[in-house]
Amino acid sequence: MGHTGFEPVTSALSRRHSEPTELMTQKDSKINKLVLITLCLYFHTMIYYSRDDIDNLDKIFRLNMINSCTGFKSANLLATKSTNGKTNVAVFSSITHLGSNPPLIGFILRPTTVPRDTYKNIKDTGVFTVNHITKNQVEDAHHTSAKYSSDISEFDKTELEEEYLDNFHAPYVKNCNVKLGCKFLEEYYIKENDTLMLVSEIMHIYIIDNKIQEKDGWLNLQTAKSVTINGLDGYLSAKLINRFPYARPKKS
Amino acid sequence: MGHTGFEPVTSALSRRHSEPTELMTQKDSKINKLVLITLCLYFHTMIYYSRDDIDNLDKIFRLNMINSCTGFKSANLLATKSTNGKTNVAVFSSITHLGSNPPLIGFILRPTTVPRDTYKNIKDTGVFTVNHITKNQVEDAHHTSAKYSSDISEFDKTELEEEYLDNFHAPYVKNCNVKLGCKFLEEYYIKENDTLMLVSEIMHIYIIDNKIQEKDGWLNLQTAKSVTINGLDGYLSAKLINRFPYARPKKS
Repeated sequence: MGHTGFEPVTSALSRRHSEPTELMTQKDSKINKLVLITLCLYFHTMIYYSRDDIDNLDKIFRLNMINSCTGFKSANLLATKSTNGKTNVAVFSSITHLGSNPPLIGFILRPTTVPRDTYKNIKDTGVFTVNHITKNQVEDAHHTSAKYSSDISEFDKTELEEEYLDNFHAPYVKNCNVKLGCKFLEEYYIKENDTLMLVSEIMHIYIIDNKIQEKDGWLNLQTAKSVTINGLDGYLSAKLINRFPYARPKKS
Repeated sequence: MGHTGFEPVTSALSRRHSEPTELMTQKDSKINKLVLITLCLYFHTMIYYSRDDIDNLDKIFRLNMINSCTGFKSANLLATKSTNGKTNVAVFSSITHLGSNPPLIGFILRPTTVPRDTYKNIKDTGVFTVNHITKNQVEDAHHTSAKYSSDISEFDKTELEEEYLDNFHAPYVKNCNVKLGCKFLEEYYIKENDTLMLVSEIMHIYIIDNKIQEKDGWLNLQTAKSVTINGLDGYLSAKLINRFPYARPKKS
């Protein structure tokens, strides 16, 4: 278990036992108590998890913590249609920018746990859509993570609606304000945890309202009402603090 | 160039010519004008980019659009120290959760464009830290993207401060509220755009204040004041809309 300077540090497995009151009872003098209380109030109580702590955690606790410890994630609905016409839509928080020229995106699939409909449809048809989840869709978007059998479309179990644009095989999701039509390119097997990273290229971009795009091409995702995901199940709206110019080295 | 139903759709290369006023002057009757105005107000003006449009865009415009079209990104400072003791810290928006057991993260490196210090230090020493950027650090965090030569530490050019915890070789960033100590495991070459995905495992987690973590393990990133990135240069704070329980199929 680690510690740092004056800051009381508690490990995952002992944190319930390290509240200020308990620390204080270990001291005799009232002055020491007062110093500790002041330090605790000033420095807060840091929590520390070693790798052993993490490996020994309850499964759900670990899932919640590790899923939220890398920061905010993108919040998208990935929609596909099978070769026999059955649609599928599922929430994905791992869609990541890979490069702009060519326009590439990546996302992670867990073939053993995630419903295989999305993966099968992408491999069979080569295409899928990525649709930004907006504020008023979060409840339905989250519900797409329920494990339905492959003969049931999540579009039928939620208020989410299919939308077909420009003869693209995969459905877009109506009322999402930013939508991408994508073509599968390659999959990479990540041996460290038996997952796949799928690399795909962007073929179509729809921006529902021209107010979302600035003159320099930037999409204002706050204007788009796109949300972000915290962990497995937290959905948040975002508010711009600032945009900064291209950073150049300081002379001094 | 695509179009969809009644919604006026403009392509990247013609959008300046498709404002409502111009559409209207193409019509003779006042009634038609009124119908068009109503439709425009009701449906807004959608923007569409085909793949050809994207490939023909100005480079900066494309960078801004493609970097923002996948949704919000994580906002982290990745810190390393070379074998001869020189530190390095750089903003990364591609750090992504890969799995919880074992706790794995991935991020993307562009060996040809991104400063190589981070990559070289990780390969030489095997370790690095991931530090959530907080609201009051956004300007300094963004400045770490400036291209300094490898003999200059971004810690010396910003107000960001190094912090060493539990004898970990790489520095953490002081005043970041969530910090991960990570160990490099493997790199995957993405041939589609000549980038690398680095897979690493989490060895240490520091949460600066126990108020950030809920009883079920979830880190409340709003409480942590962690920010999210929009595109290349937009930094946003986030506000929780809702957390949802584990989704189960609806019976009906």
